[in-house]
Amino acid sequence: MRIKIISSYKKLLEMAKDPIILESVFNLVHWDMETMMPPRGIELRSQQLALIKQVEHKIRTNPEIGKLLDKLLKHPDYDDLNQIQKRNVFLIKKEYDEQVMLPEELVKETARQEAITVDVWKKAKAAKDYSIYEPELGKLFELKKKAAEILMDVKKTSTPYDALIDIFEPKMPAKTITKIFNGLKDGLITLIEKCRNSSKQPDVSVLKRKVPIQFQSQVSNAIAKFVDYDTESEKAGGRIDETEHPFTTGYFDDVRITTHYHKDNFTSALFSTLHEAGHAIYGQNINHKFMYQPVGEGCSYGFHESQSRFVENILGRSRDFWVYFFPVLKQLTGNVFSDVDLDTFIKAINNVKPSKIRIEADEVTYSLHVIIRFNIEQDLFAGKVSVAELPEVWNQSYKEYLGVDIEHDSEGVMQDTHWASGYFGYFPSYAVGNIYSGQIVNEMEKELPGWRTKISKGNFKEIKQWMIKNVQVHGKLYDPSELIKKIAGKEINFEPFLNYLNQKYSELYDF
Amino acid sequence: MRIKIISSYKKLLEMAKDPIILESVFNLVHWDMETMMPPRGIELRSQQLALIKQVEHKIRTNPEIGKLLDKLLKHPDYDDLNQIQKRNVFLIKKEYDEQVMLPEELVKETARQEAITVDVWKKAKAAKDYSIYEPELGKLFELKKKAAEILMDVKKTSTPYDALIDIFEPKMPAKTITKIFNGLKDGLITLIEKCRNSSKQPDVSVLKRKVPIQFQSQVSNAIAKFVDYDTESEKAGGRIDETEHPFTTGYFDDVRITTHYHKDNFTSALFSTLHEAGHAIYGQNINHKFMYQPVGEGCSYGFHESQSRFVENILGRSRDFWVYFFPVLKQLTGNVFSDVDLDTFIKAINNVKPSKIRIEADEVTYSLHVIIRFNIEQDLFAGKVSVAELPEVWNQSYKEYLGVDIEHDSEGVMQDTHWASGYFGYFPSYAVGNIYSGQIVNEMEKELPGWRTKISKGNFKEIKQWMIKNVQVHGKLYDPSELIKKIAGKEINFEPFLNYLNQKYSELYDF
Repeated sequence: MRIKIISSYKKLLEMAKDPIILESVFNLVHWDMETMMPPRGIELRSQQLALIKQVEHKIRTNPEIGKLLDKLLKHPDYDDLNQIQKRNVFLIKKEYDEQVMLPEELVKETARQEAITVDVWKKAKAAKDYSIYEPELGKLFELKKKAAEILMDVKKTSTPYDALIDIFEPKMPAKTITKIFNGLKDGLITLIEKCRNSSKQPDVSVLKRKVPIQFQSQVSNAIAKFVDYDTESEKAGGRIDETEHPFTTGYFDDVRITTHYHKDNFTSALFSTLHEAGHAIYGQNINHKFMYQPVGEGCSYGFHESQSRFVENILGRSRDFWVYFFPVLKQLTGNVFSDVDLDTFIKAINNVKPSKIRIEADEVTYSLHVIIRFNIEQDLFAGKVSVAELPEVWNQSYKEYLGVDIEHDSEGVMQDTHWASGYFGYFPSYAVGNIYSGQIVNEMEKELPGWRTKISKGNFKEIKQWMIKNVQVHGKLYDPSELIKKIAGKEINFEPFLNYLNQKYSELYDF
Repeated sequence: MRIKIISSYKKLLEMAKDPIILESVFNLVHWDMETMMPPRGIELRSQQLALIKQVEHKIRTNPEIGKLLDKLLKHPDYDDLNQIQKRNVFLIKKEYDEQVMLPEELVKETARQEAITVDVWKKAKAAKDYSIYEPELGKLFELKKKAAEILMDVKKTSTPYDALIDIFEPKMPAKTITKIFNGLKDGLITLIEKCRNSSKQPDVSVLKRKVPIQFQSQVSNAIAKFVDYDTESEKAGGRIDETEHPFTTGYFDDVRITTHYHKDNFTSALFSTLHEAGHAIYGQNINHKFMYQPVGEGCSYGFHESQSRFVENILGRSRDFWVYFFPVLKQLTGNVFSDVDLDTFIKAINNVKPSKIRIEADEVTYSLHVIIRFNIEQDLFAGKVSVAELPEVWNQSYKEYLGVDIEHDSEGVMQDTHWASGYFGYFPSYAVGNIYSGQIVNEMEKELPGWRTKISKGNFKEIKQWMIKNVQVHGKLYDPSELIKKIAGKEINFEPFLNYLNQKYSELYDF
């Protein structure tokens, strides 16, 4: 009997392998679209991406999978399966149940429309003209809404939007997020207020210094080296390229990041490289035995953000990191920073100031950018806001939450690629990730009390190992709510993140 | 009735579209492996390539295709289909009949083994050690042999090797090739002899001048511009990257070439860029209406080579081209060639000298490299030579045909990627391409008598248009034997190519 359930399990796992590999092909083809593809290739590319998704969908909905799942779940020896095996079965069943409800044509059409919408988004953004983008975004939104309505039934969420969030952050409905975000928002607004009222305002002129691109690129490589994200050796499993909007993609031994170098805004590439490198090392350090299995990916997008925002901010904007890295930066950038002292630099990169662009926002105001998007998405899927009204609503929200005036849609509603790429429901993960990172670092503090000193000496190894052991290695073995409990002993809780910010900024702003 | 056959035809064509798109995905993923992939990615990559091939095979062998073909071919209105439609039906049937005979496992395993063998080939070549390469090449050869034996029955060829050649050059058995190659060989050996005995030997010292890579890269871009292979504009449909072994890949609006820059051997990248650009413009100029249809690819590999070797040699090594391009080259390479006169340069790049490396061989000796490979492949598939004996046989042949001593296998049997990539039966196409190019240019001479003068003025436009109209636009609408007859009024014939060489080199070597 024992052998029988294991052999059925292995058969099921074998069937789950192909769509995983095909998804890695999809991601690679998508990466190429963003980095390498000649402009005329877009029509073919949209067909390629659509076909891969269609085939993936077909393989994922093979009725054989349904039969095998049935057989396994009803098997008298089911409990002989270990935790990992049971989790794989659970994840395969979840995916199967959802995918069989989605019509193949919808899946294919969505992938095609995503490629087209991203392409149009780029052009519209360059032209600062939302009207070019709106019709394609509208089409994509309708497709996504249709999928959300179908998934709502399978996932048993109370709204279509909740079904989309569930793709990125399982079992976290908008209601729960709203409650958490409300608490976070209040704390952030108080903190922003305190920073604004402080008499110790940083000198940010250093941020405007021009840094030649080749210097910035060397800094990116040095960051990669710091976090042991190998892009250069004969055993490298990563690479850094340039795109309009930075991102990370790949699978285990081939995980790639992108960045965007601005000559007169060097911190943009600096912090986006740190951010994406955080994602990349997560992707590379999931238990290698999980490769080609459903458990072989990140726990959730929120957890992924906890890792990227840990590297970008808690590490990358800390005094300790810059004690070590400022001399490296100076050395790699000619004479650009030779006259700048460490303290001025640290204060400048931690300047708290409401702004227009999310990916360039400081640590404190950042989550407000996310909350704006979350609210808009909710209204969009509830039918309270139309695609045509997005720019107006966006600009109003920015005025209300951050007090800034958006001058054109390229610095407003068109700044992010997410909606163009069909990633509705993704944004909350960023702030959820910030929150997780607060809880995670709280625990790390207890187990590795000297971690900050290690960083100031250029030693990231033990910290990375701690993160791997406590977060990354588990892959998707747990639901996010389970994993955060396993790590922090508690449910998701924004207090540690707020405490971290309050402590850090009270020192910087002297209040 | 009319509507019915058209609707069946359209259905069939729709079913043929997916594997074509999937093949373009395969080629892109392969291109990435050669150009961009981090080294650790190879295991995943071999799985990706194998899976794409497996899915492609599955789609190509869908029994629905068989049924539709049956229905169409027996349809009373079959003759209402036009030439293009009938050709598509023919090509789909050929592909279907062959693919259904190949076991899915064999197709998948072959793709996986190809990726692994290429990876090992690179390492073995770098280490100059055939013994690292031999076992993997052996495995791949066995897989290819198995496929060849199956295909032999379907294609009704008299040997397994003929079945492989047929993939690249349809309906041209080894026997026919042998006859043509024998005639060509005799003519070439006589010509080589004359060049050797001439008292007017060129001064080749200019070929050894060091040209910085960034200059060479600018020259490649200038070549691309010359042949209107757009890699730079907002409407670009191509790009140039670096690989160990130059190649062209892609489909219609996204056709990419690669080259390899050697600091102390600038002609290597120069002529490989010309060669690959020749392939690329062919790929881009097939009738755009043929996209996603079986007729939407090159006529044969031999015809592809006729285009690449036309650009590389008949154009790229001609006096007329250099009258125009030498000043461009001088301008793009600093002072490297400022003291060199045109005549010396032209004679140097047309130096006839038996050598070891095929892709760097001159126009006259080149075909002998191909004939050597063709003979070895024949013996390999006839069981007269084993994979282990390849280096020995290779070195003997080079001694016999070209009088050169191979010192290590990296400049011998391991110089080419073809066998590692599973391309057995491909090599003859190179010499067949030379032969076609001779016939094609013969015709062009009649219709565009002033074409050489145009080139010397930097005008390639009309020549390109002539090539498009007479060769490229037709795609795979004709068998190669039909197309060459359509163009030249005759079957394949090596005389025009030999005449071209004799005339050119009698002038250069003054005999």
